[in-house]
Amino acid sequence: MAPECSNPMTTTISPLAPEHFPDMPPVAGLRLATAAAGIRYPGRTDVLVALFDQGTTVAGVFTRSKCPSAPVDWCRAQLKQGAASVLVVNSGNANAFTGKSGRAATKLTAKIAADATQTKPSQVFLASTGVIGEPLDATKFGGVMDRLVATAAPGGWDDAARAIMTTDTFPKGAAAIVRLGATPVTICGIAKGAGMIAPDMATMLSFVFTDAPIAPAVLQSLLKQGVADTFNAVTIDGDTSTSDTLLAFATGAAGARGVAKIARLSDPRLPAYRKAFDAVLANLAEQVARDGEGARKLVEIIVEGAVSKPSARKIALSIANSPLVKTAIAGEDANWGRVVMAVGKAGERADRDRLSIWFGGIRVAHKGERDPAYDEAEVSAAMKKPEITLKVALGLGRGRDRVLTCDLTKEYVAVNGDYRS
Amino acid sequence: MAPECSNPMTTTISPLAPEHFPDMPPVAGLRLATAAAGIRYPGRTDVLVALFDQGTTVAGVFTRSKCPSAPVDWCRAQLKQGAASVLVVNSGNANAFTGKSGRAATKLTAKIAADATQTKPSQVFLASTGVIGEPLDATKFGGVMDRLVATAAPGGWDDAARAIMTTDTFPKGAAAIVRLGATPVTICGIAKGAGMIAPDMATMLSFVFTDAPIAPAVLQSLLKQGVADTFNAVTIDGDTSTSDTLLAFATGAAGARGVAKIARLSDPRLPAYRKAFDAVLANLAEQVARDGEGARKLVEIIVEGAVSKPSARKIALSIANSPLVKTAIAGEDANWGRVVMAVGKAGERADRDRLSIWFGGIRVAHKGERDPAYDEAEVSAAMKKPEITLKVALGLGRGRDRVLTCDLTKEYVAVNGDYRS
Repeated sequence: MAPECSNPMTTTISPLAPEHFPDMPPVAGLRLATAAAGIRYPGRTDVLVALFDQGTTVAGVFTRSKCPSAPVDWCRAQLKQGAASVLVVNSGNANAFTGKSGRAATKLTAKIAADATQTKPSQVFLASTGVIGEPLDATKFGGVMDRLVATAAPGGWDDAARAIMTTDTFPKGAAAIVRLGATPVTICGIAKGAGMIAPDMATMLSFVFTDAPIAPAVLQSLLKQGVADTFNAVTIDGDTSTSDTLLAFATGAAGARGVAKIARLSDPRLPAYRKAFDAVLANLAEQVARDGEGARKLVEIIVEGAVSKPSARKIALSIANSPLVKTAIAGEDANWGRVVMAVGKAGERADRDRLSIWFGGIRVAHKGERDPAYDEAEVSAAMKKPEITLKVALGLGRGRDRVLTCDLTKEYVAVNGDYRS
Repeated sequence: MAPECSNPMTTTISPLAPEHFPDMPPVAGLRLATAAAGIRYPGRTDVLVALFDQGTTVAGVFTRSKCPSAPVDWCRAQLKQGAASVLVVNSGNANAFTGKSGRAATKLTAKIAADATQTKPSQVFLASTGVIGEPLDATKFGGVMDRLVATAAPGGWDDAARAIMTTDTFPKGAAAIVRLGATPVTICGIAKGAGMIAPDMATMLSFVFTDAPIAPAVLQSLLKQGVADTFNAVTIDGDTSTSDTLLAFATGAAGARGVAKIARLSDPRLPAYRKAFDAVLANLAEQVARDGEGARKLVEIIVEGAVSKPSARKIALSIANSPLVKTAIAGEDANWGRVVMAVGKAGERADRDRLSIWFGGIRVAHKGERDPAYDEAEVSAAMKKPEITLKVALGLGRGRDRVLTCDLTKEYVAVNGDYRS
């Protein structure tokens, strides 16, 4: 917990990173700015401010932790109104487990941002990521806020994604353009991954912005449904942050181009929009898995033939969080025995003698026994690839689900255990 | 899964091992023998046979895996009668996920043992540990069974405990002597730990023997209650084996020395006996934690002030299974932020602002904030010790529980991921 510990952030970019940051268009009604406020890291940006045009709606989903951070409490409270003017995100300090001083810091940050933009503190949204248990000095925002507001401009996604990174090895962004009626609207998102900061945990944060005009309740519904098969279907190590925050902002600026507001879930334009929105979430979530600490393999786990989708999810997560499955994949071994173990311990219905298991599309076990037909050399070659699909067929029903994870390597232990040496 | 993979069993004994194998007395009515049947390992014993005098009762608890091994299925079926003549245990092959041939192997093994001892196959109990998904050649028992039966003798606990080892780095035994009325009776147990065999998972097996005369229902109750705070309160990596088996055998031989049978749970002699029985289970369970793969620290996790004991257990296991807590302990860091995270993700009632956390008896966090009084140097010294107690006080109620675990080291990843290199 020593605050003087240096940041052990690895400079090696994950081998699973995309080739480059995507081209992302500006979102009408939104301006971005970043600054280096010196919260923790020397020589890099650590504050992101997003300024929204009047009429912007907001929705959010948060960690289910019973010990959430102060900014999570703050956002939950403000979300009831559904209106946003400013988003302030900092890296370097999570403002978690900071007691009364943490609450005071959120209040002061919101006041600083509200004063600088002539809005109400209740329309300011906050997220913090970084060291836990250390007081966050919110006065540092005062030193940079006026300049942030003065310089905020459309676009600048790469800079925005970099300002919120902790032990992430690459910035994460995704965008989509979709038509509402005849008019194209934009959806852009950024995220930071599940990483660690010496000596404390960091968080998963993501922010999605659109110029579509969407009522708060519809936006909330979009977000809640969208997260189920994207961010909630990713696990690095089964450890849930106290700060996980996903906020969506709809500026409504496309209204000026004749797009009518989406006020109801029954709106016929919604399915196409939802598809694009979900694709942005799925893209960001996959990038989080690709940047899992120490990750060398991206692992897609598909469970089918379960008695229901929730049952398939539970089994898929049991496999994805099993240290023995994850270390076997790190060792490039198609160890289906450990998969059986993980299926068995999930507590969901399963019949040993109906189980079939595939690694990289090759069936290695069938109806409860080793598949006599599989070719060891072929499987070995598949296991050497950086992306591996592990499929389990239970043979019981029609329940199917999919989660993403990564392997468990010595680098994971090093990132999370060696920071004091 | 390649059966030709050599066994990467480490020859380094866990630094947490007891200094020597305990002195354990013979149990009247029980004879033991071991042999090298060549099931998998070259140059070591891999079969243990226990022969029981007539009238021996038996009880058992098993893995909750939905995909149990064939011997687990076999024992569950025979247990209904509550009478035992022979126990046959092998290491090297778990006979798990072996389909019809697995069932045939259990049947054949029981027949071989029954024929050699003139008993019924239904009084033969079986356990197997080792490679999964490979057929077990039960004819190998035929080659050694007659000699095993001929040479079986009282005592020999060290040899017995060694014959059932897989990646265990030391044999595990524990004994107690307790008076039933005026007459001393003996309780002896052996166990093998949660370890790995290249390339597959191994299992937790334990066998407890007593010369006390105990009715099967009473023995089953003793076992079920005893396991709750001993074996079920130990976790290495949260991965549950398909083969976990704990069997208790009561030969009743002390009856010849005038000890009346314990036929009811209300027997006034039972509390003292239970205490000794539980102590043997607790001792064995602790040895399993001390021999966790790659373990360098034995970690006792105490949760108090929870709303109930089950709630405290769930929170304690969430901490014990958290990769981030376990890697921090490997790194000798009293990282209470990660403990807060693990409390928060458990899903049980917790109030961030009432939490207090101790490492090695030193309070590092109090009422939701860093304890300003703690001395970093003192905590650092405590974290360097091989045995660490981590206590969490929730401040909500009177629920208290305790679990044992170990740290998560690069050696764990190496044992479980590097076996192909």
